[in-house]
Amino acid sequence: MTNIDIEISEVGPRDGLQSIKTIMSTEDKKAWIAAEAAAGVPEIEVGSFVPPSVIPQLADTAEVVAYARTIPGLAVAALVPNLRGAENAIAAGAHKISIPLSVSETHSLKNVKRSHVQMLEEIDLIVQRIRELPEGERPKFEVGLSTAFGCTIEGPVSEDLVVQLAVKAVALGVDEVGLSDTTGYGNPAQLKRLTKRIWENCGREKLNGVHLHNTRGQGLANALAAVDIGLTTIDSSLGGIGGCPFAPGASGNIVTEDLVFMLEAMGLKTGIDIEKLLAVRELVQKALPEEEMYGFTPEAGLPKGFVAATGS
Amino acid sequence: MTNIDIEISEVGPRDGLQSIKTIMSTEDKKAWIAAEAAAGVPEIEVGSFVPPSVIPQLADTAEVVAYARTIPGLAVAALVPNLRGAENAIAAGAHKISIPLSVSETHSLKNVKRSHVQMLEEIDLIVQRIRELPEGERPKFEVGLSTAFGCTIEGPVSEDLVVQLAVKAVALGVDEVGLSDTTGYGNPAQLKRLTKRIWENCGREKLNGVHLHNTRGQGLANALAAVDIGLTTIDSSLGGIGGCPFAPGASGNIVTEDLVFMLEAMGLKTGIDIEKLLAVRELVQKALPEEEMYGFTPEAGLPKGFVAATGS
Repeated sequence: MTNIDIEISEVGPRDGLQSIKTIMSTEDKKAWIAAEAAAGVPEIEVGSFVPPSVIPQLADTAEVVAYARTIPGLAVAALVPNLRGAENAIAAGAHKISIPLSVSETHSLKNVKRSHVQMLEEIDLIVQRIRELPEGERPKFEVGLSTAFGCTIEGPVSEDLVVQLAVKAVALGVDEVGLSDTTGYGNPAQLKRLTKRIWENCGREKLNGVHLHNTRGQGLANALAAVDIGLTTIDSSLGGIGGCPFAPGASGNIVTEDLVFMLEAMGLKTGIDIEKLLAVRELVQKALPEEEMYGFTPEAGLPKGFVAATGS
Repeated sequence: MTNIDIEISEVGPRDGLQSIKTIMSTEDKKAWIAAEAAAGVPEIEVGSFVPPSVIPQLADTAEVVAYARTIPGLAVAALVPNLRGAENAIAAGAHKISIPLSVSETHSLKNVKRSHVQMLEEIDLIVQRIRELPEGERPKFEVGLSTAFGCTIEGPVSEDLVVQLAVKAVALGVDEVGLSDTTGYGNPAQLKRLTKRIWENCGREKLNGVHLHNTRGQGLANALAAVDIGLTTIDSSLGGIGGCPFAPGASGNIVTEDLVFMLEAMGLKTGIDIEKLLAVRELVQKALPEEEMYGFTPEAGLPKGFVAATGS
């Protein structure tokens, strides 16, 4: 990961695929992951350890993690809802485990059927479980502060509560917390404000990344705010796959291709070969012929004479 | 214009309508302009004084300018390609006249059939013409530095040349220059760099606005960079009308609704009532049933419990 300014964490195989009807075959997932890794994407969230009855699209996550582990240099991340999921993720060999802690307790109860207290207990158990592992085998453990920018059920969430939950998670021993704009409610000023407050209360090294949605078209502006303030990891999804809760052009996750174009155009190295990244799209579209893919840069093409910050 | 942090200049009736096939009726244009003004939009570019044979969609610009002038508080802007257009704009009563000076000379020759030297001569003549008017009747005269971020024909343009042309225009006596990302090539770092250099060489008061395109999805990120550095006027188009050179979701101009949402969410007053602005969309869609309208916020709706910076 040397010589990278901003680390892109591709979440399409998890956040993207869980939101669409089509179930991608395990072979297609492997091909997608391999192709993005070959384009230079440093981290990929490849699945979620949830019961197949809940998210059948990700039933093969253990196999996908095991495969992704064989790709040299790739950081393999997986989402887990609870201790059981974490144990499965550890068994499969994930390098990084993320758990959602929704700032909106209403959302938390709907999403993972647990209150804040119950989630913090679960997080505590996972921290203990990871500490039992030999030092070299411990995955990185991150708490994603979901609905940190607002909730579709509760409306605005308290910024104090965002900070309090971050402090509690860090006190339990998690490696990092992340800010998640689950609902696409976030704005650049809010992102900078929340980041500063968490840094002040938890230590700067405890918050490095954001997970943004483009529901109201604010995704790249929020990503720019993140980069401006000094965050270094940004989640995104190839082709914005998975998130089309609304009409044409709307998308859920921010589009990896547009994000990488922005950063590379600004002179920020992602380590990603954007031409190769754009080529991965065809492979994924072939595997998901029924699904729409989003993104402006892929349609418009790179500017004439474009020079990326990351050399080929 | 007191109590406004960022001034939105709506360019849909000009830049939007000139790019689509449908010719909007004069009555529909008037209704659109009246409705946006009533929503609080402070400035609208209502047309372009070009020969009807070139852009038949804007053949009624003189009538539209005259009508828009009757709306209290609204700044009425019009584009002109040359002295003749400026004379027509002055006769019609435009408050603001803009002329494109394309940094890519190749583009200038294609777009307005004039070299840099010829365009600067034309600009000089317009400045003289305006000075002949009584002081209270002089329109504001702005030079839009088109293709300032790159050209689809020439590729990258020299930043030195952008600055040189800005200096020459200001030396001729224009009120302001504006940065135009005609091709959607721009990135936030470039925008800040160009702005600083023009400020250093022309004086800060000579550059206040940007005209951005969303061709590669960078529109709002670039608008955020503009606001961050201290620019105060941003062009945008309701529904992103007019610019769909590429596939679904792509758009030309940045979408007024998404831009206003970003600014208001950040606590920056635009003076615009966003609910009223969103309602204007229906009126325009009815008048342009064949044309696609873009924008994420209109589709997703405002966040639950959203509080805008501009009070109703």
